[in-house]
Amino acid sequence: MSFTLGEISRLVQGQLNGDPGIVIRGAAIIRDAQVGQLTLADSDKSVARLTDCSAAAVMVRRGTTVSGMASIEVDEVTLSFARAVELFRPRIREAHQGISQQAHVDPTAFIGKRVTIFPGAYVGPQVVLGDDVVLYPGVCVMAGSKIGDRTTLFANVVLYEGTEVGKQVLIHAGAVLGAYGFGYESGTGKHLLSPQSGYVRVEDHVEIGAGSTIDRGTYGPTVIGEGSKLDDQVMIAHNCRLGRHNLICSQVGIAGSSTTGDYVVMAGQVGVGDHVDIGGKTILGAKSGVMSSLSGDAVYVGIPATPHRDQMLKQAAWSKLPEMRKEFKALQKEVEQLRRHLEGRRGEAA
Amino acid sequence: MSFTLGEISRLVQGQLNGDPGIVIRGAAIIRDAQVGQLTLADSDKSVARLTDCSAAAVMVRRGTTVSGMASIEVDEVTLSFARAVELFRPRIREAHQGISQQAHVDPTAFIGKRVTIFPGAYVGPQVVLGDDVVLYPGVCVMAGSKIGDRTTLFANVVLYEGTEVGKQVLIHAGAVLGAYGFGYESGTGKHLLSPQSGYVRVEDHVEIGAGSTIDRGTYGPTVIGEGSKLDDQVMIAHNCRLGRHNLICSQVGIAGSSTTGDYVVMAGQVGVGDHVDIGGKTILGAKSGVMSSLSGDAVYVGIPATPHRDQMLKQAAWSKLPEMRKEFKALQKEVEQLRRHLEGRRGEAA
Amino acid sequence: MSFTLGEISRLVQGQLNGDPGIVIRGAAIIRDAQVGQLTLADSDKSVARLTDCSAAAVMVRRGTTVSGMASIEVDEVTLSFARAVELFRPRIREAHQGISQQAHVDPTAFIGKRVTIFPGAYVGPQVVLGDDVVLYPGVCVMAGSKIGDRTTLFANVVLYEGTEVGKQVLIHAGAVLGAYGFGYESGTGKHLLSPQSGYVRVEDHVEIGAGSTIDRGTYGPTVIGEGSKLDDQVMIAHNCRLGRHNLICSQVGIAGSSTTGDYVVMAGQVGVGDHVDIGGKTILGAKSGVMSSLSGDAVYVGIPATPHRDQMLKQAAWSKLPEMRKEFKALQKEVEQLRRHLEGRRGEAA
Repeated sequence: MSFTLGEISRLVQGQLNGDPGIVIRGAAIIRDAQVGQLTLADSDKSVARLTDCSAAAVMVRRGTTVSGMASIEVDEVTLSFARAVELFRPRIREAHQGISQQAHVDPTAFIGKRVTIFPGAYVGPQVVLGDDVVLYPGVCVMAGSKIGDRTTLFANVVLYEGTEVGKQVLIHAGAVLGAYGFGYESGTGKHLLSPQSGYVRVEDHVEIGAGSTIDRGTYGPTVIGEGSKLDDQVMIAHNCRLGRHNLICSQVGIAGSSTTGDYVVMAGQVGVGDHVDIGGKTILGAKSGVMSSLSGDAVYVGIPATPHRDQMLKQAAWSKLPEMRKEFKALQKEVEQLRRHLEGRRGEAA
Repeated sequence: MSFTLGEISRLVQGQLNGDPGIVIRGAAIIRDAQVGQLTLADSDKSVARLTDCSAAAVMVRRGTTVSGMASIEVDEVTLSFARAVELFRPRIREAHQGISQQAHVDPTAFIGKRVTIFPGAYVGPQVVLGDDVVLYPGVCVMAGSKIGDRTTLFANVVLYEGTEVGKQVLIHAGAVLGAYGFGYESGTGKHLLSPQSGYVRVEDHVEIGAGSTIDRGTYGPTVIGEGSKLDDQVMIAHNCRLGRHNLICSQVGIAGSSTTGDYVVMAGQVGVGDHVDIGGKTILGAKSGVMSSLSGDAVYVGIPATPHRDQMLKQAAWSKLPEMRKEFKALQKEVEQLRRHLEGRRGEAA
Repeated sequence: MSFTLGEISRLVQGQLNGDPGIVIRGAAIIRDAQVGQLTLADSDKSVARLTDCSAAAVMVRRGTTVSGMASIEVDEVTLSFARAVELFRPRIREAHQGISQQAHVDPTAFIGKRVTIFPGAYVGPQVVLGDDVVLYPGVCVMAGSKIGDRTTLFANVVLYEGTEVGKQVLIHAGAVLGAYGFGYESGTGKHLLSPQSGYVRVEDHVEIGAGSTIDRGTYGPTVIGEGSKLDDQVMIAHNCRLGRHNLICSQVGIAGSSTTGDYVVMAGQVGVGDHVDIGGKTILGAKSGVMSSLSGDAVYVGIPATPHRDQMLKQAAWSKLPEMRKEFKALQKEVEQLRRHLEGRRGEAA
């Protein structure tokens, strides 16, 4: 399959710098692009990397100058490049529409307009599905859950009873919302599960990654605030309240009853203890561990999480620790010698 | 929806201190409670927090004195508060009973009394289900597995062939028991999978969180001991043997062939290496990493896991490391000066 | 159930040292073996542990001498012991064959020879399944995905649209391939999802553990190289390219666009940052964190990942840090005394 550079440029309404007749046989990022392909440079850094790239042409933001390679300047560089990619590898989409006969939908469920339910999905009693909701195969929406308009649940997502999901939410395959919180009373030598009368509430425009788990509150909601995005395999424990527009990377775990403000960012594998409050705009470095509340608007790293600058100083000292230890032993010896020397002279003097 | 405080008090057989006519419009924990709602204070610490809470009344343990707010004293404070919560937000429960026609149950499976199998569940050959077992939608119980009385498998749980699950066990959505152990022989430059002739055995009263994975033993069982509780996204590798009444928090991983005694507690994101034995009543702090066996009945933290006191000393030294480094440089200089001074005087003396 | 040692020895074509009439009532590893059972010693270390084992006999590699216990020498010791184990606990296997009427297979899908599709599986439009493919219950293969010959997808595995899986691949229950990459443009105060035009490509002989997640590339493939093995709950982010014959242990997370060479090993809970290149034959210790590229053929541990020897020196210094701090304080005092002493003498001298 091939297109000319001119054809691609017209498709994305770009400005072409170079020969429109160049034949393009594929589209790939700089790392992967081969001879005869179109590539993408969406930053100065990536423009600089073009010298080592064998692509035939590059797509760039409007106003970017490229030397030594034909270029297409566009306004929306990532979307336009995606369109070029899909020229060469057209997406094949699911064709299913409406409510499958092989799905199980309880007769007491309320189903909005243009809802799609794939084979093998389950919708329990008194569930409410808004308009344009899509439930992929194997999705299980248990009793009394509510899902807002234009929300998509990918395959095998599970919502326990009473889960509330807002509008235009994406929940990826295998995520589980509303499982029991990990709270026990252990006085008797056995661990007795605490009440599970709460639920999970996911606000509008949230996205939740594959395999993530969000447990139900003890008495009230566990909340994921509007516009927040959770990566794959994230764990949010019972009673947590995440603010709006958080970015929570993969394999982060937040223990019970903790809260975050708005615009908090947590890098991969961060752990947050229970009953901790994290202020707005806090940024937590990868693998950091938070044991106590943080006031916000600052970068923290390490275990326990420490302001970034302090941690860098400690890391520097830490990396010189073996050397310092050697120097310290030498210094001890030297002081010892000085002392003996002085004592010797004192002896002489006496 | 509203109830009087008197109505709620009677429902939970509580002792009311205050006006029974107070109208209550909801029930929520202190953090969330609003004007006109009932809240909960189940510890001295939470009673102290009531001064900042706008709730109209509070439920407390019998014998607790509260000033400045109406209170209901009860024996089982968490259960009673859960009942109050459910007054205002009644649980909607799954209505399904019996064995769904949309489930697949192998004719050679043995099914106990009052078993519930939801649509989309799969039960393989020679599976044995005890009385009152519940299998939610999408559950897959493969050949020869056995499940004890009163055990519940939530949606999309998978038991590989030969899995044994005891009585009154809860396994949450998406958990996988019996997948292949991660053991390979790599001598030839390729990685050849070791035998997978073992299985998983989960004893009575165990609870397993959403998305957790417990791999089958190589030749025999991987065991989760009676009454132990595993949180979400826990990983237990092949051949492990967990003791009784362990509490394993979210995102903990235990590598192959390791064992624990009874009443072990692991906080979130702990990692335990392979072939490690952890004694009874060991407590492991969040994110700690265990590389070698621990004798038990002690608290360990850090990587590698270290007795808590030692670790605190190291943390203290570590947090003063940059300062110590500065002081050390100053001390080096001072000793140098002393030495020169002495040498100078020696020179003078000569 | 019981067999004689002679019967077992003949079954595995072993060489018997001892009485062929010994009655064997089970087979278990040394830790678990009881009186009257056969056990396994596949290394010198495990042969040494036999003295404390009450087993009646042991299976060993050909040429291994055992004293004090009957033994069977065999060529393939792990496979032979697995056969003995299965004598006593015969595997019960799934009996299903062919394409279940309770599965949903799109009419435009291409199905190879001898394909097995269990009840409750879903196969979307234009999917291609090679010969001898097995799809367990609840598997969802979305539009345009391709699966090579002899590949098995265990229960509830999800392949998003356009996923490519090679030959003789094992994907364990609940794994998700092709969910959206965690990439956002956040300039406007909202987080806008980046394009998701890429896909996941899994090469031949790969094995992927239960609950693992591999996200689709932004424009091109996320690649898992030939023969690589991923344990349970592993996270591979968008655009990553893993080399061949990697071993990636449980709960490892690799962030976006990172690459590995061949024969890389990562122990449990390792984290790798984004845009990091890890050279071939790199070994990463458990819980280590990689922030920048590594040249390969070396062992790294710690956060940030450091060559093993350096880290051991730092660990040693770290573990003596409290002691060193004490000694340091003492040394400061001593130098202070020396200084005063000298100043005193200088005073005397003046």
